[in-house]
Amino acid sequence: TGEQWLSSRNWPEGSVGRLMEQAPAAFSGEARVATVLEELRPVASRSLVTYVFVVDDSHHLTGVVTFREMVFADPDQRLEEIMVPHPFSLQPETDVVVAMREVVRRHYPVYPVCDADGRLIGVVRGSVLFEEQAFEISAQAGSMVGVEKEERLSTSWGRSLRFRHPWLQLNLLATFITAAVVSAFQGTINQVVLLAVFLPVLSDQCNNTGCQALAVTLRGMTFGDLKPGQGWRLIAKEAWLGMLNGSMTGVLGGLAMYALAAHQGNPDALTLAFITWLAMAASCGIAGIVGAGVPQVLRQIGADPATASSIFLTKATDIVSLAMFLGLAAWLVVR
Amino acid sequence: TGEQWLSSRNWPEGSVGRLMEQAPAAFSGEARVATVLEELRPVASRSLVTYVFVVDDSHHLTGVVTFREMVFADPDQRLEEIMVPHPFSLQPETDVVVAMREVVRRHYPVYPVCDADGRLIGVVRGSVLFEEQAFEISAQAGSMVGVEKEERLSTSWGRSLRFRHPWLQLNLLATFITAAVVSAFQGTINQVVLLAVFLPVLSDQCNNTGCQALAVTLRGMTFGDLKPGQGWRLIAKEAWLGMLNGSMTGVLGGLAMYALAAHQGNPDALTLAFITWLAMAASCGIAGIVGAGVPQVLRQIGADPATASSIFLTKATDIVSLAMFLGLAAWLVVR
Repeated sequence: TGEQWLSSRNWPEGSVGRLMEQAPAAFSGEARVATVLEELRPVASRSLVTYVFVVDDSHHLTGVVTFREMVFADPDQRLEEIMVPHPFSLQPETDVVVAMREVVRRHYPVYPVCDADGRLIGVVRGSVLFEEQAFEISAQAGSMVGVEKEERLSTSWGRSLRFRHPWLQLNLLATFITAAVVSAFQGTINQVVLLAVFLPVLSDQCNNTGCQALAVTLRGMTFGDLKPGQGWRLIAKEAWLGMLNGSMTGVLGGLAMYALAAHQGNPDALTLAFITWLAMAASCGIAGIVGAGVPQVLRQIGADPATASSIFLTKATDIVSLAMFLGLAAWLVVR
Repeated sequence: TGEQWLSSRNWPEGSVGRLMEQAPAAFSGEARVATVLEELRPVASRSLVTYVFVVDDSHHLTGVVTFREMVFADPDQRLEEIMVPHPFSLQPETDVVVAMREVVRRHYPVYPVCDADGRLIGVVRGSVLFEEQAFEISAQAGSMVGVEKEERLSTSWGRSLRFRHPWLQLNLLATFITAAVVSAFQGTINQVVLLAVFLPVLSDQCNNTGCQALAVTLRGMTFGDLKPGQGWRLIAKEAWLGMLNGSMTGVLGGLAMYALAAHQGNPDALTLAFITWLAMAASCGIAGIVGAGVPQVLRQIGADPATASSIFLTKATDIVSLAMFLGLAAWLVVR
């Protein structure tokens, strides 16, 4: 199997094949315990043998034997008598995160890796899988705002700049859409400057509400909690939650608007307060929909569900919330 | 040890002690291999024995023996002859994330847990540690925006609301400070309404730049990459990176401001463009400082470095960037 193992570098990045090591011990099912132990004695002293794998003539994996079994077996017994038959195995092309979901309840120290025909081509240590997964998961918060997986604290500033800058330029271009929305209401703001004061409040509040939904959705996808067909139910839950959160925070937002407007002698203080409350309730509901929806859409189109998700989310919530707030003001307040 | 093991529930949340199981096999160093195997035969059939632990009369852990060693040993040998002496062990009060950093290069299936005197009180499976860590790390993106670790996709909307709502109210109160800053410049905005158009652009761009620094810092802290004394160096790197990113995206921002202002016949178009560029460069630099600094400050005061970090970050960058932008405009443009 040495030759096949060396070809492990040909497997796609992030796949099980990339983490594969050579399987140290494989025997025929007819081999006797005493013989196997004798053959393993020199091997076990220089490499860590955890399981003995049992294969047929064409190297198909037929069973697994632990040292514990061999200790308590009769030296004359054949491996096929004491092996666990049809053992669980991984495929080399499987994504590490998907493999993690398959092994998380198994907790074996080592997993055999078999090709599509069931031939043993290597092993993967469980701890290597877990370590890789921890690395992948820890990259998520950064991926959401355009940080590459590879970036670590030791990355040089030049490389960090090259990694992060393109996303920031993209983010800026996207904020221009938000700016265009506000720009369309310059006349409205000119008449009620107080509206400008509430733009950052509304935008920030919707973003945070949406980011909560986004983070919960991404985490659920990581652990395989989001079953097929449940996507719409999650979106509905987050819409409802966002709407509730928005209408409850909107009360404070509306009160603040009323206090400021009344203080400035604005005759429409009550209408402005109502508009603030309505815009917060509705846009936080939409923020929930976008937060739960963006990672699902990204996955559907074959992209990583976390990558730039926060960038897409904040732009969508900004555009919706500010258009709603300023649109309502243009309609109800400015005459 | 059964009694001691049962008391594992008394260890603090997130500690190794909470993940502890009873050590299934502990023998004296003078026990012979044949005797140990005979005693283990019934135990091994009903529980998964991975290692045999060697303890002295007071139950101090003195060594570890693997089944592999026993298979190849003489049945008359004593455990103390074949054991690995002074084995690595964990302490029950250690934080899981800290323990992970200690075991990440060891990859044992099971770790002994000893009290302060070195007495064996239980074991922790390596996979359980890794699983717990994956759970902790996956909560980070949510913690940053006020989602509790316990929340999963299956959490009821009522519980989700109770978890998330307090942070959203806190976030809203914090945005009022931002609103107060903008409010202080209502006169300026009244004269140059175009400034209002760029408020969401500036705020969003600084937030994203700062969130990149925040995510990288948190990830580094998770893997123990941030060594004591390197905190200031990281802050300096992120300030420099933020400033570079800000001055490069600021060019596009300034051009957009110039185009809009010139189109609207504003005689100060060039000054407004310069102000936009300067505010973006400087505030993105500050966003880098805040992003790298917030988790360090949170850890210093004994809080979780991720919790609400994004909330603190966005408020700080909003206040600084908008005050700088509107302040410069009030000083240089409005007469």
